[in-house]
Amino acid sequence: MNVLIIGTGLLGASLGQALVKAGHTVYLEDSSPLNLRLAIEYGAGQSALGVAPDLIELVVVSVPPDHAAATVADSLRRFPLATVTDVASVKASVLAEVRALVDAGAVERYVGSHPMAGREKSGPASARADLFFSRPWIIVPHSGKQDEHVKKLRALAADVNAIPYVLEPEEHDRAVALVSHLPQVISSVLAGQLSDSNLDRLSLAGQGLRDTVRIAASDPELWIQILSRNSSAIVPMLTELTNQLQRVATALQHMDEPGALRILHEVLLAGNLGVARIPGKHGGKSVDYSTVTVLIDDRPGQLAKLLTEVGEIGVNLEDMQLSHSPGAPIGIVELSVLPEHSEHLVGSLQTRGWRLA
Amino acid sequence: MNVLIIGTGLLGASLGQALVKAGHTVYLEDSSPLNLRLAIEYGAGQSALGVAPDLIELVVVSVPPDHAAATVADSLRRFPLATVTDVASVKASVLAEVRALVDAGAVERYVGSHPMAGREKSGPASARADLFFSRPWIIVPHSGKQDEHVKKLRALAADVNAIPYVLEPEEHDRAVALVSHLPQVISSVLAGQLSDSNLDRLSLAGQGLRDTVRIAASDPELWIQILSRNSSAIVPMLTELTNQLQRVATALQHMDEPGALRILHEVLLAGNLGVARIPGKHGGKSVDYSTVTVLIDDRPGQLAKLLTEVGEIGVNLEDMQLSHSPGAPIGIVELSVLPEHSEHLVGSLQTRGWRLA
Repeated sequence: MNVLIIGTGLLGASLGQALVKAGHTVYLEDSSPLNLRLAIEYGAGQSALGVAPDLIELVVVSVPPDHAAATVADSLRRFPLATVTDVASVKASVLAEVRALVDAGAVERYVGSHPMAGREKSGPASARADLFFSRPWIIVPHSGKQDEHVKKLRALAADVNAIPYVLEPEEHDRAVALVSHLPQVISSVLAGQLSDSNLDRLSLAGQGLRDTVRIAASDPELWIQILSRNSSAIVPMLTELTNQLQRVATALQHMDEPGALRILHEVLLAGNLGVARIPGKHGGKSVDYSTVTVLIDDRPGQLAKLLTEVGEIGVNLEDMQLSHSPGAPIGIVELSVLPEHSEHLVGSLQTRGWRLA
Repeated sequence: MNVLIIGTGLLGASLGQALVKAGHTVYLEDSSPLNLRLAIEYGAGQSALGVAPDLIELVVVSVPPDHAAATVADSLRRFPLATVTDVASVKASVLAEVRALVDAGAVERYVGSHPMAGREKSGPASARADLFFSRPWIIVPHSGKQDEHVKKLRALAADVNAIPYVLEPEEHDRAVALVSHLPQVISSVLAGQLSDSNLDRLSLAGQGLRDTVRIAASDPELWIQILSRNSSAIVPMLTELTNQLQRVATALQHMDEPGALRILHEVLLAGNLGVARIPGKHGGKSVDYSTVTVLIDDRPGQLAKLLTEVGEIGVNLEDMQLSHSPGAPIGIVELSVLPEHSEHLVGSLQTRGWRLA
């Protein structure tokens, strides 16, 4: 397939690399000549200069959300035979803008995408062909007559090892509001409370706080565009969440009044239930793994030695985390295994002289 | 030292094991004969039955927060020569109750503690001597005449490999309100939003959501006691946070009005700054590690093989995480290393044929 990628930032360049690997012919465009050249040098494809428009079968618009609709509309005009998609992480607002810019016939060739992939760095030099590996790629048709284009995008997702989902634009926006945009706002606002707090207090921060605020390190410029374009889906959820927080605050302010404890209990219990509903590894139901904690010296090779022996013992790790506590040059390794393997692993590690916690 | 631990749940029994290992004589009491027997069988100490009260030099009250003050007061009466501490994760309210229960002279022998350690399981059978390893142990004197008792608790913390901090009760409560209680409320309320949401939406959940709601799986019974006892420190923070969320919601509802974008930008930027202020590993300043991502087959021994080779390459891992994406039987290993080691590691792993992402 002849694919044109417009915009060779992290996402566009990664997609180019992945599609080149999969055997496609990839043409690249970018308003920045430097970005374009970097993307070509990093193996994301070749310059689109001089390519006959009718040759292009698929255009992937990979520019920031605020520029997506105009570039999609432009592409629909320039490449009359191509399917056109974009990668913006909001879909209804982009579609509405595209509809306002081109005629209804051309809009039929536009099907939005949202590859749920990214990393903390940006730009073509950070591109990696495996960026989409095993990540959801949401395909967002807007009419019932787009099967051919949806099929093309399913093939695209499969070629870069992503997992395709098909959703309507509004449902897409509500889903990502819940699983991505709402957590981002919460995490940012919570982390914001740390921005002028006593540093001594922060030295007591444990893993709970760290996990809760991790995504607050995200790029403000990108997130302004995302949040402002999905406000209609986010606002009701944010309002509901704010109401719940106010219920908690009111209960805490009046602990002696009847019902205060019940409100706290309800909120904490609903949290338990909510976490339990997130699907676990491999897309299946959430499994309660057993955790085996091992203390190791904080120097090269120790973790490898441990895991070599775990391999010899024959137990498969479901998850694992290495961490250090403040002030100690020792690593704490948490091995998550299926509950039925836990006892065998613990016994075997102890026999081999490992220090279990 | 002759230590009496009252309450042989996870914390008490773990402390007993650690103190026995450190060479102390540990006596145990528990209102549940079964718990007591389990704790003794798990090596946490010996029964306190028949021990002369004057023999006890230190009492550690390790019962739920709601019972802490009464048990502390009782201990001050029963053991006239002993330093008495408790392990409740709120301090000012326990102190106030103790003061109401015993005379001022006896209160001088009480110094609160808060070992910031725990695990997802409870009870003496889950105890582990290394529970406190490298974790903060906050010591909370309430007058200037408690040096002798503070010294004893510093020694206790050191003996179980914890890191002692000394804070006043009110400052302790404000600090944990910020780094622990506020994140707990936020995480619970956010996770609560998932409790009746569409399961298809949750299948799109990524690491961001998972991290943000992880601690919402905590025990509601314990957290009701903690939150309700620290309401005066939590409420102002919760109110400030709720106000910020309302600002965001209002801005999102009126995106066309002047200032709306500025509010979003401020909140996102404050989040960036807040995260950056949390101290990193080893208690030092936060370091930006480089992440090297490797894809491995999801079967025993693969991770060990990788880490053996990382050890051979001679690079020390600062942190590491193993994860799986939905639907794929492949593990994604994120190796965090010092930035100056990143290039060498990447090159060496590639030479050895690893699949880097």
